Amino acid sequence: RSKVTVTAIPGDGIGPEVMRATQQVLAAADAQVEWEEALAGAEAFRRGIASGAPRETLDSIARTGVALKGPLETPVGHGEKSANVALRKTFEMYGNVRPVRELPGIRTPFSGRGIDFVVVRENVEDVYAGIEHMQTPGVAQCLKIITEVGCERILRLAAAVAEAEGRRKVTVATKANIMKLTEGMLKRVGEQVLAEYPSLSNEHMIVDNCAHQMVIRPEQFDVAVMTNMNGDILSDLAAGLVGGLGVAPSANLGDGVAMFEAVHGSAPQIAGKGIANPTALLLSALMMLRHVGDFATARRIEHALYVTLEEGRDLTGDIAREAEGVPTQQFVDRVIANL
Amino acid sequence: RSKVTVTAIPGDGIGPEVMRATQQVLAAADAQVEWEEALAGAEAFRRGIASGAPRETLDSIARTGVALKGPLETPVGHGEKSANVALRKTFEMYGNVRPVRELPGIRTPFSGRGIDFVVVRENVEDVYAGIEHMQTPGVAQCLKIITEVGCERILRLAAAVAEAEGRRKVTVATKANIMKLTEGMLKRVGEQVLAEYPSLSNEHMIVDNCAHQMVIRPEQFDVAVMTNMNGDILSDLAAGLVGGLGVAPSANLGDGVAMFEAVHGSAPQIAGKGIANPTALLLSALMMLRHVGDFATARRIEHALYVTLEEGRDLTGDIAREAEGVPTQQFVDRVIANL
Ligand SMILES: CC(C)[C@H](C(=O)O)[C@@H](O)C(=O)O
Ligand SMILES: CC(C)[C@H](C(=O)O)[C@@H](O)C(=O)O
Repeated sequence: RSKVTVTAIPGDGIGPEVMRATQQVLAAADAQVEWEEALAGAEAFRRGIASGAPRETLDSIARTGVALKGPLETPVGHGEKSANVALRKTFEMYGNVRPVRELPGIRTPFSGRGIDFVVVRENVEDVYAGIEHMQTPGVAQCLKIITEVGCERILRLAAAVAEAEGRRKVTVATKANIMKLTEGMLKRVGEQVLAEYPSLSNEHMIVDNCAHQMVIRPEQFDVAVMTNMNGDILSDLAAGLVGGLGVAPSANLGDGVAMFEAVHGSAPQIAGKGIANPTALLLSALMMLRHVGDFATARRIEHALYVTLEEGRDLTGDIAREAEGVPTQQFVDRVIANL
Repeated sequence: RSKVTVTAIPGDGIGPEVMRATQQVLAAADAQVEWEEALAGAEAFRRGIASGAPRETLDSIARTGVALKGPLETPVGHGEKSANVALRKTFEMYGNVRPVRELPGIRTPFSGRGIDFVVVRENVEDVYAGIEHMQTPGVAQCLKIITEVGCERILRLAAAVAEAEGRRKVTVATKANIMKLTEGMLKRVGEQVLAEYPSLSNEHMIVDNCAHQMVIRPEQFDVAVMTNMNGDILSDLAAGLVGGLGVAPSANLGDGVAMFEAVHGSAPQIAGKGIANPTALLLSALMMLRHVGDFATARRIEHALYVTLEEGRDLTGDIAREAEGVPTQQFVDRVIANL
């Protein structure tokens, strides 16, 4: 098997630590990956790069078509835009895929209910277009933009995810009762597009009710697709149901390009201490391995990780069942031992 | 004590049933309320009233300044606008107050953690302004509008709620990292306005993280204030934490006018069967009694309701602990017996 080259963006805060941990596990499992390390985030902003991602980083992603990314800080107060959003936009990665699955050993108020669904969030339109103005003092406006092209491709991605994973139902969650043209567009296009997938049932749900249902009866969901801002909120909610952002992977998908990232922050308070939990980035790396077709290695690492979580020894402080957590390296060693 | 006149809008589906139940309990507790019944919702739309609320209903609310309202259906597909939203707008009820409190006897995955906070949602601005257009086929736009006046008054309402209830912290949740002008306005005005309340601490939280935190550690919240659309989603999420919309009260507040409503739907599948749960509307009526200054009666009814929920006999099907629920009337009789 030939090696796949992947752009590795360690990012800020705990980013470099969880990236190193993830790379160690992949290497131990003999994943055929070659890393091309690239800069983005705080250091790039410090160098005056307004997008937070230098030319070389963009070139690397364009070349490899696959990136693994840690958290990126966005400086506040000087009109800087999010480096995360800039990367998504630059490569038109229109789909944000966030699996929400109960993990062994991670106890939550919902444990044992078998939560297992995927949030598919539109990733480049909506209020994220970044068009705001304030002609009249004291009155600010932001444009929410939704296109048919954007709706169709995110719906087809949701259907593809459902089919690939043998899922049966796609829930289209919108606020079409208030925004008939914009949110209503996802609903309407959803009815047309999803009708083309006879193996999938589909339903529409008002997005506030969807948030409510995710808390009340999360087992009912299979694949849920949403516009960008609603998806931003509901995917974070959903991650909370199964243990939080520390164990939540994600993928940003475009045509011919994919970026896998942990959705947690850079956690500056614990950065450099060697105690960060690399699980979210490791799970993101497993999505990446499957994306490049290496299902076997992904399954092997997943198994080792699940055993480690289940055993419950050698876990980092945020998920440890005893009072004290172990260093990142001890957790990594345990996962590797369980390979 | 002189009687207070209140506009009663039974509404659609189970609305008339839960309204009758609520009125029975208030009458049994000798609440000094006189009802002025008014029409809104499906029947109004059928009569061709585009707003869903006839002139007489608006006149009644304008006269009484206080309304209690059941769920209203909005017909779909003919460009009708929500009658709920129309009422809020007509009377500029800019504040939506939703208490989120663990109830005795209502078991949820979060039971016993002492959840007790209030979501204060801006209620008339944001994407609810209803300005949408589609000049270019396939490209729809919606205007999100946020004003300083709107931000200031909702923040002062949040502070007033906090002070009145002896709460200590106000969390301003926004997406200011993406929408610096609109969402950022609530953040910025929040920093200024809340500094004027020395008895309250305040913090800012990114709204997606706020949704995540509400699931991960809901005990941390005291008062959370948000723009309209974010508040729509997060208040429904929050209601889910403590038993769902069937037991979630709310108030819509403006200058000199207040409308209290159950936020659940009209539940057409069970309408007319006499089995609906009136708890949400009854709790809303308690907010109303406190609003008009009748704290004693509100406390008495609240106690009787809590005892009923705690005892766990004679509950409606949606919250019953045994397999079968009882008719609405039997639940009402039990609450009255516990007065
Ligand atoms: C960091 C932020 C810009 C980003 C977003 O809003 O999309 C984050 O919340 C996410 O969900 O990846
Ligand atoms: C019925 C609907 C228009 C309404 C809203 O979006 O505000 C509802 O969801 C609510 O929260 O009261």
